[in-house]
Amino acid sequence: MPEFTQEQFEHFTRPRSLAVIGVSERTGPQAYNLVENLDEAGASCRIYPVNIRAAEIAGRRAYRSVIEIPEVVELAVISTPREAVAGALRQCVHKGIRSVVVATQGFADADAEGVRLQRELDGILAGTGTRLIGPNTIGVANLLDGFHTSFQKFDLSANATAWLCQSGTFVLGAAEFSGGLGIGIDIGNGADVGFADLLPWVARDPRIKVINLHIEGLRHAAQFLAAAARITPVKPVVVYKTGRSEAGARAALSHSGSLSGEDHVFDAAFRKAGILRAGSVEELADLNKALLTYDGIAGRRIGVVTISGGAGIAAVDALGAHGLEVASLSPQSRARLQPLFPSWFEVDNPVDFWPAAMRGGYRETCAAVLDALLADPGVDAVLFVIAAYRATGLAVIGPVLAAVAERAAVHRDKPVAFWVFGANQDEAIAEAERRGPLAGFRSPERAARALAGLDRYASAARAAARTPAQISGVQPATVASILGGFTATDPEVAGAATLAMLEAYGVPVATARLALDARGAAVLGEEMGYPLVMKIASPDIVHKSDAGGVMLNIRDRAQLRDAYAQMLARTRQARPQARIEGVHLQRYLANGTEVIIGARRDPEFGVVLLFGLGGIFTEAIRDVAFRLAPLSESEAHEMLREIRGCAVLQGARGRPAANEAALVDCLLRVSRLMEDFPRIMELDVNPLSAGAQGAIALDARAVLAPSSR
Amino acid sequence: MPEFTQEQFEHFTRPRSLAVIGVSERTGPQAYNLVENLDEAGASCRIYPVNIRAAEIAGRRAYRSVIEIPEVVELAVISTPREAVAGALRQCVHKGIRSVVVATQGFADADAEGVRLQRELDGILAGTGTRLIGPNTIGVANLLDGFHTSFQKFDLSANATAWLCQSGTFVLGAAEFSGGLGIGIDIGNGADVGFADLLPWVARDPRIKVINLHIEGLRHAAQFLAAAARITPVKPVVVYKTGRSEAGARAALSHSGSLSGEDHVFDAAFRKAGILRAGSVEELADLNKALLTYDGIAGRRIGVVTISGGAGIAAVDALGAHGLEVASLSPQSRARLQPLFPSWFEVDNPVDFWPAAMRGGYRETCAAVLDALLADPGVDAVLFVIAAYRATGLAVIGPVLAAVAERAAVHRDKPVAFWVFGANQDEAIAEAERRGPLAGFRSPERAARALAGLDRYASAARAAARTPAQISGVQPATVASILGGFTATDPEVAGAATLAMLEAYGVPVATARLALDARGAAVLGEEMGYPLVMKIASPDIVHKSDAGGVMLNIRDRAQLRDAYAQMLARTRQARPQARIEGVHLQRYLANGTEVIIGARRDPEFGVVLLFGLGGIFTEAIRDVAFRLAPLSESEAHEMLREIRGCAVLQGARGRPAANEAALVDCLLRVSRLMEDFPRIMELDVNPLSAGAQGAIALDARAVLAPSSR
Repeated sequence: MPEFTQEQFEHFTRPRSLAVIGVSERTGPQAYNLVENLDEAGASCRIYPVNIRAAEIAGRRAYRSVIEIPEVVELAVISTPREAVAGALRQCVHKGIRSVVVATQGFADADAEGVRLQRELDGILAGTGTRLIGPNTIGVANLLDGFHTSFQKFDLSANATAWLCQSGTFVLGAAEFSGGLGIGIDIGNGADVGFADLLPWVARDPRIKVINLHIEGLRHAAQFLAAAARITPVKPVVVYKTGRSEAGARAALSHSGSLSGEDHVFDAAFRKAGILRAGSVEELADLNKALLTYDGIAGRRIGVVTISGGAGIAAVDALGAHGLEVASLSPQSRARLQPLFPSWFEVDNPVDFWPAAMRGGYRETCAAVLDALLADPGVDAVLFVIAAYRATGLAVIGPVLAAVAERAAVHRDKPVAFWVFGANQDEAIAEAERRGPLAGFRSPERAARALAGLDRYASAARAAARTPAQISGVQPATVASILGGFTATDPEVAGAATLAMLEAYGVPVATARLALDARGAAVLGEEMGYPLVMKIASPDIVHKSDAGGVMLNIRDRAQLRDAYAQMLARTRQARPQARIEGVHLQRYLANGTEVIIGARRDPEFGVVLLFGLGGIFTEAIRDVAFRLAPLSESEAHEMLREIRGCAVLQGARGRPAANEAALVDCLLRVSRLMEDFPRIMELDVNPLSAGAQGAIALDARAVLAPSSR
Repeated sequence: MPEFTQEQFEHFTRPRSLAVIGVSERTGPQAYNLVENLDEAGASCRIYPVNIRAAEIAGRRAYRSVIEIPEVVELAVISTPREAVAGALRQCVHKGIRSVVVATQGFADADAEGVRLQRELDGILAGTGTRLIGPNTIGVANLLDGFHTSFQKFDLSANATAWLCQSGTFVLGAAEFSGGLGIGIDIGNGADVGFADLLPWVARDPRIKVINLHIEGLRHAAQFLAAAARITPVKPVVVYKTGRSEAGARAALSHSGSLSGEDHVFDAAFRKAGILRAGSVEELADLNKALLTYDGIAGRRIGVVTISGGAGIAAVDALGAHGLEVASLSPQSRARLQPLFPSWFEVDNPVDFWPAAMRGGYRETCAAVLDALLADPGVDAVLFVIAAYRATGLAVIGPVLAAVAERAAVHRDKPVAFWVFGANQDEAIAEAERRGPLAGFRSPERAARALAGLDRYASAARAAARTPAQISGVQPATVASILGGFTATDPEVAGAATLAMLEAYGVPVATARLALDARGAAVLGEEMGYPLVMKIASPDIVHKSDAGGVMLNIRDRAQLRDAYAQMLARTRQARPQARIEGVHLQRYLANGTEVIIGARRDPEFGVVLLFGLGGIFTEAIRDVAFRLAPLSESEAHEMLREIRGCAVLQGARGRPAANEAALVDCLLRVSRLMEDFPRIMELDVNPLSAGAQGAIALDARAVLAPSSR
């Protein structure tokens, strides 16, 4: 992929000269005429309409082709019928134009002919240095510099957000999705320029505070994730990923020809790169508002100030649903607040201020309560619940908002958010936001989710900045030699060889080793360490347990000796005819919990790791955690704690807790093994027995790529 | 509890005469003067201000007490300081006033003195026939008849919704929570009149189409649920239950002195009564809008019509998240639509209409697409996705909305909902809703949730109309006799006796029965049926399995005979000194899955039944389903299918599927046993082994009330 330069980014987003190819002569309402739109928007670039039939368009001379234009324009926008696009693009390349937007629909988003036409565009671009956004796009909207390429008029307020998307809806509708727009780019079918090209340049613009992505599917995922991980520690990136449901994924395929990967893999990838995922368009809007309004949040302890006890309880529920805590007020804060209230009222959080406001005035009470909460070291943010009824208008709450805004501006370290209800809700929210660093929301659930979003961003920024764990004690040569034994036609590698590869990477494995007699068993026992499992080694005994041929939890040499003698005696008695070769010894964990570690190589995202409790939990309940390799230690710990069945590992039902460090170590080593050997496409350690002392792989399997790479 | 009559309801909600006790002389903004408010609202009732100091209030003669008023008013509203409330209430009772609202705060919502004062009010009312709403309430707002008792002015639009709540916020803010208000009543602390009293009368008003409840805690739950279950099959009841989180429950206790029960029990109760629970204030608003706008929905298959492919995918995701399906268009519909589109465009659902609109006009295309979808028998409802940008205003989409409204009005059986985005969103939503039976939403997620809400209501209405299952083959006398054996000081009933009670109610139990010799075993085998488990009966052998003293899955008489001989021989050899009494036989299920059926008697809601997979699933993952007794057959089936681990019962991991009918039968019988014997406070069947042939209780325990009832 050729490098996407800053110059190209600037030509796409604020060109000094522009050719508009295929623009119609029509102007006026519903003419969708870009030249006219740009004139209305007061764009300062030189504009050259290109139309094979017209002499003049929107008061300008029209050219029959870009070739005739008296300069090499910085950007060309093509919106001819799809059959004419390739010809127009060839002329652009010929003329030396390096940046082209193809707006026309009907390419990979449509039928087989469209797929062919899009491939033709690829061919025209190859090796030319010309870059293309589209096809099937509204292109670029840069409201910070007064430029756009959309056939729709732009009527948005400029703000500090950016959008990179696969549907013009998210640029045209940015008022709703991010409260306005700074720079928006619709990559459409993404035939050439994609998210990975654009993201670093958008992020470098100091006027942009929040970057939004709308993703249906993703190409060049590794490059994209690497770019995002560099950005998220300093600037939030929010994603709205659609095609989540099966039906949605099908629809995405036909919309932009995107390959929609599995949604849980996207989740793992976003997490890896520190990207915040929004689950709904309203969450998008709320996250943007919070990230634009506040400088950050130090913790999860929220003070609630409410005009209504009932609404305060709703707010507390909402905080709980989003992982926030109801702050405990300090004795100092309580002492400071109590005199404002009637004697029968015990001050607590939520602070139900109405009984105080009836005595001391609405504005005065709110100001005093807020002063106390913002001064309390146990409070990280404040959620204000107020009513804005039509009858009273802003006359009553205007002064309250002013007093709150004044204090919020001083305490930029502690976000102050509002839930406003009542018929004058929108007016009151606008007034609050106009007054200072305040964000207003239409429900307690949305206010809480937005505050929690600030904390999510803080965690995501830390996560993206993590480095993969360092792993020692791995023997790549051993694994290479084992893999060498499998030909291109052996895709499946069963137990023993997979366990051997794991062992070479330091994962404890329960290889079964044969002892031919009591002395051999004693020697093996010393070598392998205790506890051990002993199983009778006989080709004639299938159900070993029934024949007395299994002994668990052998703890020392003496027990081993007794066990050997008893097992031989018992099985000979039970099955006098059976040939007995000796016993197999395997390492054993007393009271181990069976877990699974899985790894799969995704074509776009690389190695995806899975952790779960195995068996029913993994297959029927899908109680599993996913992460992308390479794992950091924190990520491995997170995987263990993320599953619902985590309590089982922590020692539910009287079992000892599993050794977390040992499980983390196994996860990191499997991650490293997959990183080091791209030929391994899948690897499942199942079961891995996790006990108090450590973890041991009891069985495993791998799938290899057809040929060595 | 005295009956709450229609006359009392009418006196509370549209009195012909009213005493306002404790009203202040102040009028004007922020005076919170009810007399003035009612005059402004044009209330037609006779109003008597009562104030011990003033001679005239808001242009009316003021009385020193209700005693002096020249008539017995139908309603009195008391808002004196809390110390004076009891005296005022005594005077009301003395005067013969039967309906009183106590607005004053500071009772059970406050300190110990407040609790005492509230109890004093209870005492004053006892035996008088006077009913009280409050204390700590804004009282009643009946906008359909132009009356309210609130110190806040009312500025809401009247609509066909009702609110019964524990916080005035939901009445005052009803514009937001239900789009307006018909009748709203805040029960405040609920010292006397509660939800169960009011619900039937509100439901009986034909002007009310949707009833909303805001619940923090509940008293007289059984009466309330019975009332609700009679209403929900004909009129939707929606609840916003707060105090869901632990912190929220604590806050609820201090707000209205409510006892907040466990949230999952409320969920089970709402479900039983057919009440729809809304999880957020926005879901409340959206459910109300959908239930007010549409007549219902026939199924879950949704046609999506969208201006943008990307937005269409977002809509499809939203449908999936709310359990709705993307309708498959009939060949007829496809054939009808294809000519509108360019040849490269393949018509599918979602119908991305833009390429057609560019050729055939926006309004014409939308009308034609909608006609086709509404005529398609595979489409139950339509979700329209449109943009309303500021630049174009309603000029572009106004005609589209008109065309859509016209068709929606004809097809009242198929709801048509909008997701509108863009800066003119609110204006467009209002215009759509003004034009016809259309509801507009600000996000695809909310539109989908609202359509799903119609389907939820249809299911809830059916559920509430169900009758408990009929159970035969129960032996109450046997259970009574077993219970008779336990004294008041024996709260815990262990295995054998509990299994015996279950057996008397027809639950198959694996009672261990002793056979003294081979012949005895054979006789028992015939009696008990196969398969069986045989265990050695010996006081000296603790680990029976190790001594060869357990044989599973004995399938017939021959196997039983062999097993007896082998077991005796083996255990005598392994433990020559052990006294052997014979063998125990227990019924056995091959490959059974262990599940748990639990039952607990809740002080408010009666018997709560639990079903889960037992063990870790119940304890660590909390993967359990709850329902209230008495169970209907459908409810029992729902419980099995509701748990995440349901796939395990359906035969995951190569096991046979569990017998659903047998599990349902066990649930119904446990439900009946708990209903019939109130002395049983808790009962756990754990484990119940569920196999392909049936289910058998392997162990159980019960907890009894201290004394027989």
